[in-house]
Amino acid sequence: MKNTAILLIDCPDRKGIVAAVGEFLYRHDANILHADQHQDAERSLFLMRVEWDRKDFALEPGEFTRKFAPLAERFAMRWRLEISSLPHRIALFVSKFDHCLVDLLYRQQSGELPCEIPLIVSNHPAAERWADFYKVPFHVVPVEGDNKVAAERKQLELLHEHQIDLVVLARYMQVLSKDFVARYPRRIINVHHSFLPAFMGAKPYHRAFERGVKLIGATSHYVTEDLDEGPIIEQEVVRVSHRDGLEDLLQKGRDLEKMVLSRAVRWHIDHRILAYAHKTVVFD
Amino acid sequence: MKNTAILLIDCPDRKGIVAAVGEFLYRHDANILHADQHQDAERSLFLMRVEWDRKDFALEPGEFTRKFAPLAERFAMRWRLEISSLPHRIALFVSKFDHCLVDLLYRQQSGELPCEIPLIVSNHPAAERWADFYKVPFHVVPVEGDNKVAAERKQLELLHEHQIDLVVLARYMQVLSKDFVARYPRRIINVHHSFLPAFMGAKPYHRAFERGVKLIGATSHYVTEDLDEGPIIEQEVVRVSHRDGLEDLLQKGRDLEKMVLSRAVRWHIDHRILAYAHKTVVFD
Amino acid sequence: MKNTAILLIDCPDRKGIVAAVGEFLYRHDANILHADQHQDAERSLFLMRVEWDRKDFALEPGEFTRKFAPLAERFAMRWRLEISSLPHRIALFVSKFDHCLVDLLYRQQSGELPCEIPLIVSNHPAAERWADFYKVPFHVVPVEGDNKVAAERKQLELLHEHQIDLVVLARYMQVLSKDFVARYPRRIINVHHSFLPAFMGAKPYHRAFERGVKLIGATSHYVTEDLDEGPIIEQEVVRVSHRDGLEDLLQKGRDLEKMVLSRAVRWHIDHRILAYAHKTVVFD
Amino acid sequence: MKNTAILLIDCPDRKGIVAAVGEFLYRHDANILHADQHQDAERSLFLMRVEWDRKDFALEPGEFTRKFAPLAERFAMRWRLEISSLPHRIALFVSKFDHCLVDLLYRQQSGELPCEIPLIVSNHPAAERWADFYKVPFHVVPVEGDNKVAAERKQLELLHEHQIDLVVLARYMQVLSKDFVARYPRRIINVHHSFLPAFMGAKPYHRAFERGVKLIGATSHYVTEDLDEGPIIEQEVVRVSHRDGLEDLLQKGRDLEKMVLSRAVRWHIDHRILAYAHKTVVFD
Repeated sequence: MKNTAILLIDCPDRKGIVAAVGEFLYRHDANILHADQHQDAERSLFLMRVEWDRKDFALEPGEFTRKFAPLAERFAMRWRLEISSLPHRIALFVSKFDHCLVDLLYRQQSGELPCEIPLIVSNHPAAERWADFYKVPFHVVPVEGDNKVAAERKQLELLHEHQIDLVVLARYMQVLSKDFVARYPRRIINVHHSFLPAFMGAKPYHRAFERGVKLIGATSHYVTEDLDEGPIIEQEVVRVSHRDGLEDLLQKGRDLEKMVLSRAVRWHIDHRILAYAHKTVVFD
Repeated sequence: MKNTAILLIDCPDRKGIVAAVGEFLYRHDANILHADQHQDAERSLFLMRVEWDRKDFALEPGEFTRKFAPLAERFAMRWRLEISSLPHRIALFVSKFDHCLVDLLYRQQSGELPCEIPLIVSNHPAAERWADFYKVPFHVVPVEGDNKVAAERKQLELLHEHQIDLVVLARYMQVLSKDFVARYPRRIINVHHSFLPAFMGAKPYHRAFERGVKLIGATSHYVTEDLDEGPIIEQEVVRVSHRDGLEDLLQKGRDLEKMVLSRAVRWHIDHRILAYAHKTVVFD
Repeated sequence: MKNTAILLIDCPDRKGIVAAVGEFLYRHDANILHADQHQDAERSLFLMRVEWDRKDFALEPGEFTRKFAPLAERFAMRWRLEISSLPHRIALFVSKFDHCLVDLLYRQQSGELPCEIPLIVSNHPAAERWADFYKVPFHVVPVEGDNKVAAERKQLELLHEHQIDLVVLARYMQVLSKDFVARYPRRIINVHHSFLPAFMGAKPYHRAFERGVKLIGATSHYVTEDLDEGPIIEQEVVRVSHRDGLEDLLQKGRDLEKMVLSRAVRWHIDHRILAYAHKTVVFD
Repeated sequence: MKNTAILLIDCPDRKGIVAAVGEFLYRHDANILHADQHQDAERSLFLMRVEWDRKDFALEPGEFTRKFAPLAERFAMRWRLEISSLPHRIALFVSKFDHCLVDLLYRQQSGELPCEIPLIVSNHPAAERWADFYKVPFHVVPVEGDNKVAAERKQLELLHEHQIDLVVLARYMQVLSKDFVARYPRRIINVHHSFLPAFMGAKPYHRAFERGVKLIGATSHYVTEDLDEGPIIEQEVVRVSHRDGLEDLLQKGRDLEKMVLSRAVRWHIDHRILAYAHKTVVFD
C-alpha cells in the first residue's frame, strides 16, 4: 500500500496561494506526486489537491496541522489532510438488487478499491451469502411500517460500532431521514438509476422506456437532505433503441450503475473529490 | 439517385402480416433491398418498413395503392408508400445561432442529405450570407411583440408557396403556435440543446452548468403542441468536467446539436422513422 | 423460460425469400415475435433471423426439418433451427485473471444469461473458490512446457463429457491449437484486451500505454485458427488521458472486457449472431 | 480577446519545482488562472502548464526570459512562454475532401478558434470557393509525378511569406517529405481516418469495413517523419453495425474527423499540448 499524504483545500481565490503551499511543502521536504487545482471563476473560489510521498516528509499529521494553521488562516482556507495508509472503512447498504454490492465486494477484494468493508446492512436477508463468502459481518435491519426511526437508530449504532467513515448505498431502496444524512455529511454515496436530473424519483427505467429516450443513464452522487439533488460525482449513459424492451433497459442499466458507483467510491477513497455548492470537483 | 419504394406500416399485431406483405411484393416482382419490423409487445402493435428496387417493380404508385388497399384493410393497417426519387423539400428555420443551419446546408450540398432546401426563414437577417452562398431563397420574418399571428401566417404562406414538406428548426428560438404545429404533424423537427427530459425549457446549458452534471446532451425530436415533449428521434451526449466553464459547455453542445439534428433529418428523408404514441421507431 | 424457435438463414440473395419463409411459417401457425434480415450487397448474400412463439406452432423440430427442406433447397439456403428452451451448455476457460469469469457466473446465476455453466477449466487452481461458490465442476488442466497436446486432449474429453456446445475463453491466456479450434467452429468466444486490429498479440495495454492512445478498447470474437483474426462480435472503448498510468489502463480495461465478453455470450445464446466471411451480423 | 501568458515546462522531476515557479510568478504579481502539472513516473519527468492574467503582471516577455533563465537552468527545464494575444497563424492544406476545411473555417470565423487563417494550399482547385467566401488567400500547388520537390519548395515559400506557425493537414492526401516535416517540428497536425494504430496507411475505412469492426475511429496527431506514427493528440470513435455499408462508414467517419481535428487545433492554439517521447500531454 502506498504511503502518501493528500492535502485538500478550498478558499477564496487570490494571488500567492500556490506559491505559499508549494514553499511550505518544499520546506518540509515533500516529494509531490500529484498536484491539481481549479478556479471557480463565478464564485471566486480556489480549490486544490496535492499528494506527496511521506517517505522523506518531515511532519507527522499533528505537527502538520500546527505548522500549517497560520498559512491556512492567512488565506481563509477550509482544508483537510488525509493519510493514504489509513484506509476508509466502508459500510455497504443494500436491498434486494445485489449487483452493485457484488461488484464492490469483488473490486475491494481484488485490490482495485483500497479500503476496508467491515459491514453490510440490508433490509432483506438475501445478501447474506455474499457477506459469508467475503467474510463481512452482515446485519438485517428491516424497515417496515413505522419502525423507521428505530431502524435508523440501529443502523447508526452499527456504523458507530464498526467505525465506519463512508456509507455506500448500493441500490438501497429506503430513503434516509434528514437526521441520518446530517450525521454523515458528504460521506454517503448513492447510485440513482437515471441520468439526473432526468427521471428523479421512483421507477426511472420505466419512465425512460415510456418517454422513448435513445440513451439511458445512471448517476452516483453524495446524499443530501434533498433526494436526488446531492452533488453529482459521476454519470454514464448507454444507447438504447426501440428494440430494447423494459427488461433490456434494466439489464443495460445495471452495468451503468456498477460503473458509476464503483468510480465514485474509488475517487472518494482516493480523496479526489471536493464537493462544494451543489457540485463536485473530481481531481483526476 | 437511387430509385426505390418504401412501404411503412403500423397495425395491430397478428399472424400472417409478414407472409401477406412478402407475397404481395413478390407477386409484383419487387426486389427487396431492406426489410425491418418491430413488435411493440405492450401495445400489441406491428410496425414494418420495406424498401425495394423499383426497376423491375410492376406497379406505379397509384396502382399500388389500389391493389394494396384490400390487404391493408384486412390487417387494419395505417400505411404509406414513399418514392425515394421524389426528394423532400425542406425549409430551414433559424434565429441567431447558425451552426446547425450551416451544417445542414453543407451536408445537403455535398450529397450527404438527398433532399432539396428551397427555403430559409429567419427572424434575424444574419443568416442571409449563407443563403446567398448556397443560393437558397431567404426570408426574414421578424417575430416581435404581438405580431406572432401575422408572422406565422407569413411563414405558412412561404411554406405553401415553396411546397415544403418538412420544416427543420435549426436553433429557431421562437415557440410555434399549436395551430402552426397542427398543420405539419410529424413534419417539424426541432433540436433541443439538452438531454431530454432533463433541462426542458430555456437555457439548458446554464442549468446543466449550475447542476454540475458530468455529461451534457442534445436531442432532436418531432414538434408536437407540448413544447419539448414530442417523440424523440435522436440523442447524444459528451463528457464534461469541472474544468469546463459555461462557454465550453456551449461549444461542446454545438457539436452535439449538429449531430443529432442532421441524423434526424437524414432518417426522416430516408423514411426510416415511424412515430407512434410518444415514441419513435428508427429503422436503421 | 420462454419457449420460442429461431430460424437462421443465409443464402444467395434473390426475390421471393421473405415471401416463401413468411408463407411457410404462417401456414404452420407461427406467431412471429421478431424478424430481421440483412442483405450483404457486395457478396449478394441474404441473411435472416426469425423468432416465433412455439405455443401454437404446428411442427416439432424433426417435422420442421423435413417440411422446410424443399424450400431451403430451392433457395440454396444454409440454415439452422434453434429451440430457446434447450439452453446452451457453456464451459468457461480461465487463467489467473478472474474478473470475466466472476462476471459471467454472476450474470448466469442472476438470470441475465439463460444458459447452463456445467464446467470451468483452468490452468491455475486459483479460480476454484468461485467454482465452489457457484457449485460448478472445476478442473485444473496445467499447460506447461510440452504437454499442450495432452492438455488439449484432456480438455476435449471434459467438453465431451459435459456435453458442452460453447467454449468461452474468459481471459484464458493459452493459445488453442488449430485442431482444437476446428472441433468447435464458431463455438469458441474469446475476449482480446484491445480494440482489434490495433494491438494484436501480447500485452496490448502495455503497448497502448507506450503509444499514447487516447482511448483503449476490448474486443470479443469467435476464435479461428488465426489468432485475433476471427469474426468480431463486439467492441467497446473508454477514454484515457496522460493522467492514466498503466495500472489505470488495466483497471479500465477490465470493465470493457467484462462488457464485450458478456454481450457476446448473451447474443450467442440468443442465437443472434450469424458469422460469415470474416464478419458477424448481430441481429439485435 | 483574453490577454494571458502561458508557461510550458518539462524537466527532470525533483523536489521544489512547484514552489520555485509559484514563488517566481507571485513575486512578479501574476494572477494565476490555471495551473496543471503531470509527472511521468516512468521517465521521471515533470511537465507543467501555468496560465496567468497579464494585467497586473510586472514582466514583459523579454524581461521574463532574462529573469526566469536562472531558475530554468537550476532545474534543467525546457520551457517556453506563450502570449495569448499573439494569435497563431495557420495554413490549411487540403485535397479533394473539404469537410474538415469547411469545418475549421467556420469555427475560426465564429470565434470558436482564436487564430488567424491567412493561407489555404491545395493540390486541387476545388476548395477555391470556400477560400473566396472566407476571404482567405488560396494557392493551388499541384503535386504530380516527379514534381514533389518543387511543389514542397513552393509550399514552404508560401508558409514563409504568410508567416505561418502551424500547418493543419485537413484531409491533405499527399505525404510530406522528411525535410518538410523537419522544418515544422510539432507544428504540423494531421487527421488520420482511423483509430490508430489500427488501419495505418491507405484506405482505412475500406479495411475497417472488410474486417467487420464494430466501432470506427479517427485520430489527430502531430506529423513526424514516420507516417501515422506521430504523437496522438485526440481520438474519437462511433459505433457501426452490419447495417452500415462502406458509404455509411465514410459518412460517420467525416463527423469524427471534424471533431478530432478541430479539438487538436483548439488545444494547440491554446498551448495546452506538450509532446514528448511519442506521446502528448493535453492539459485540459
